[in-house]
Amino acid sequence: MARGKVVIVGAGFGGLAAARALKGADVEVVLIDRTNHHLFQPLLYQVATAALSPADIATATRTLLRHQSNATLLMGEVTAVDTAARCVRLKDGPDQAYDWLILATGAAYSFFGHPEWAADAQVLKSMEDALDIRSRLLGAFERAELSDDPDAVRRLTTFVIVGAGPTGVETAGTIAEMARQTLRHDFRRIDPTKARVILCEAGPRVLPAFTEPLSAYAERALTELGVEVRTGAMVEAISDGGVIVGGERIEAGVVLWSAGVQARPAAEWLGAPAARNGAVVVGKDCAVAGMDGVFAIGDVASYLQDDRPLPGLAPVARQQGGWVGRLIRARIEGRPEPAPFRYRDWGAMAVIGRSRAVAMLGGLRMTGFVAWLAWSMVHLMLLIDFRSRLTVYVNWTWAWFTKGRGARLLTRLP
Amino acid sequence: MARGKVVIVGAGFGGLAAARALKGADVEVVLIDRTNHHLFQPLLYQVATAALSPADIATATRTLLRHQSNATLLMGEVTAVDTAARCVRLKDGPDQAYDWLILATGAAYSFFGHPEWAADAQVLKSMEDALDIRSRLLGAFERAELSDDPDAVRRLTTFVIVGAGPTGVETAGTIAEMARQTLRHDFRRIDPTKARVILCEAGPRVLPAFTEPLSAYAERALTELGVEVRTGAMVEAISDGGVIVGGERIEAGVVLWSAGVQARPAAEWLGAPAARNGAVVVGKDCAVAGMDGVFAIGDVASYLQDDRPLPGLAPVARQQGGWVGRLIRARIEGRPEPAPFRYRDWGAMAVIGRSRAVAMLGGLRMTGFVAWLAWSMVHLMLLIDFRSRLTVYVNWTWAWFTKGRGARLLTRLP
Repeated sequence: MARGKVVIVGAGFGGLAAARALKGADVEVVLIDRTNHHLFQPLLYQVATAALSPADIATATRTLLRHQSNATLLMGEVTAVDTAARCVRLKDGPDQAYDWLILATGAAYSFFGHPEWAADAQVLKSMEDALDIRSRLLGAFERAELSDDPDAVRRLTTFVIVGAGPTGVETAGTIAEMARQTLRHDFRRIDPTKARVILCEAGPRVLPAFTEPLSAYAERALTELGVEVRTGAMVEAISDGGVIVGGERIEAGVVLWSAGVQARPAAEWLGAPAARNGAVVVGKDCAVAGMDGVFAIGDVASYLQDDRPLPGLAPVARQQGGWVGRLIRARIEGRPEPAPFRYRDWGAMAVIGRSRAVAMLGGLRMTGFVAWLAWSMVHLMLLIDFRSRLTVYVNWTWAWFTKGRGARLLTRLP
Repeated sequence: MARGKVVIVGAGFGGLAAARALKGADVEVVLIDRTNHHLFQPLLYQVATAALSPADIATATRTLLRHQSNATLLMGEVTAVDTAARCVRLKDGPDQAYDWLILATGAAYSFFGHPEWAADAQVLKSMEDALDIRSRLLGAFERAELSDDPDAVRRLTTFVIVGAGPTGVETAGTIAEMARQTLRHDFRRIDPTKARVILCEAGPRVLPAFTEPLSAYAERALTELGVEVRTGAMVEAISDGGVIVGGERIEAGVVLWSAGVQARPAAEWLGAPAARNGAVVVGKDCAVAGMDGVFAIGDVASYLQDDRPLPGLAPVARQQGGWVGRLIRARIEGRPEPAPFRYRDWGAMAVIGRSRAVAMLGGLRMTGFVAWLAWSMVHLMLLIDFRSRLTVYVNWTWAWFTKGRGARLLTRLP
């Protein structure tokens, strides 16, 4: 009989790291996720832009835990947590009792108090989002080729991206490349190279989390790819297939939203204090104050280090997950607890098109092809299984030489 | 100005072969398809069973026609043909006038006069079908793991396949392999190797189009993989998640239908005579009698050779498409017409699991590993572009050694 039961909600970077840290421990681990796969989110924009296939960046979570006999995976949707009865409620299955609970449900996009914008703007968080965006992008060009109305063609082939963080920058660069290079010779009635890609950022520069010279480089690189970069451009409205930005209305075929994020509703489940973005406020040990054995990690947690909240990045979730797993294990086994958690920042990277990127690694600042090479290698290494690494490598190599995109699939006009 | 306009409906094996045969000819070619990709249907069951990704067997039709400047591709749905006005009507776009019309819309499954069975039985013709079946298969195991009711587990992990032609045999063998090998160590609460896979065939043997010894071998191989083969088993009803066969009701997690096919409604569009399966009756030159410049090829055409209708196979469509393209070209260019069409039968193959197949190639009859090797090589060669060949090869090699499946993706419980 195991010495307790750890329930982990969410099989992203944080949840999976927590589960793995408990491998071989004398506990029952139950990992619950809404999907059956662990998603490598940093490359999700490549699925949305038809460069990679879904299976290249998603691995069945079961295969990742195949050799961890104390771990059970349940595919289900958590609807509530009963901290009095110490159990988690599922939409399509029986309650799951816990001794320890780790919430790792991540974040979703938020529209700054304008939920109605969601009807006209796409977000990129899940595999379903990515496939939806891929359909809309490919579908916009198909509808344009079908049309004999120049105004409709202009509207359909205008793409607006709101928010110039890494996801916005990477997506804008890739769409511009797709229009100007991949699709260049593929249409007869429209000219895809005339497509407009507009990147709007409310702040004064793109990639605000990077240094100013790197932001300047990124903006130049985007402009060279044909992206119209508009900084200091606050979006005022998104409706009827268009945006209003700086007083100007732009009709668009697709609007992508990559601005604000909002934690998923774990704080509500617990009735625990939440930060402004909805994240569960946790202490130095990732525990929720006043709740026995309840932890929150990654994007769903608001964790202060040196009085500043940690950013919503994969490495934060992964490091916190591993640390909480080791903490629970130490307590169960009656061994000394690990040294207090401290996030170790390895740096940040963003890629702009086929051969350019910006990177901050430790004290190093890189741009251009060298940064792109570093980005490619780091991301290939971080992919969780060897099969993914192999197929992503094949696809990238192929795309690099041919400027093609292997996953241009559209089953019906969106 | 081109010397006429050829409209081709359907970008499958037949339509694509026709378009390619017109490369460089002084005509405008308009190819219309409901999807944006050319699908390699013979491997569709591998997408349905999570072995391959959609992009591995589907190539954007635009890239295939990129270097054929006289060809325009339109993604759209044909709703009618007006033979008097000589134009094709589209659901989402303007009419397309034609001088020559080639109908290559293929076939869909039919339920032998029981359209209501479609609610409880899945068919495998399009990429959407394959992804739907993949979700249902993976979802059945996920739901079973979530359940604490043994009866529900038994029902969810019972799979019934109706019709033992190549698609039925290949799918049944692959599902059995997936349950017994791939998923073997991936669940904690259920035992996937206890899943039942039942293949029902109304006729006296599986693979009726093959020789009797090959059918006998296939049945043995299926049984060894754990498939329950029931020949002489007519399905009497499909309803409420189960089938009635030979008087017995079987509750199933998924029912797959691979029995009768029915041509898509081109004959209705034309008001032309149709065969019993709805196919357009065509003459020796694939032309529709009494209609100027209208041809039908592949599964949508009923073509008699030596007084027997040609089967609904990819090579028939491909050979007819190429021939009709050459015929139109000769007429336009005022050159001698090609020799009368005659289907050349290269043989047939069906694969049963990881290392076994049956093949008839010319006078040769093969079974077992040799047949499987031949099958693999032929199918790799037939894949239309080099990138697909490479990724399919990588995935097959990977799967062969690991017994894994790379594309086990499920975004929500079906």
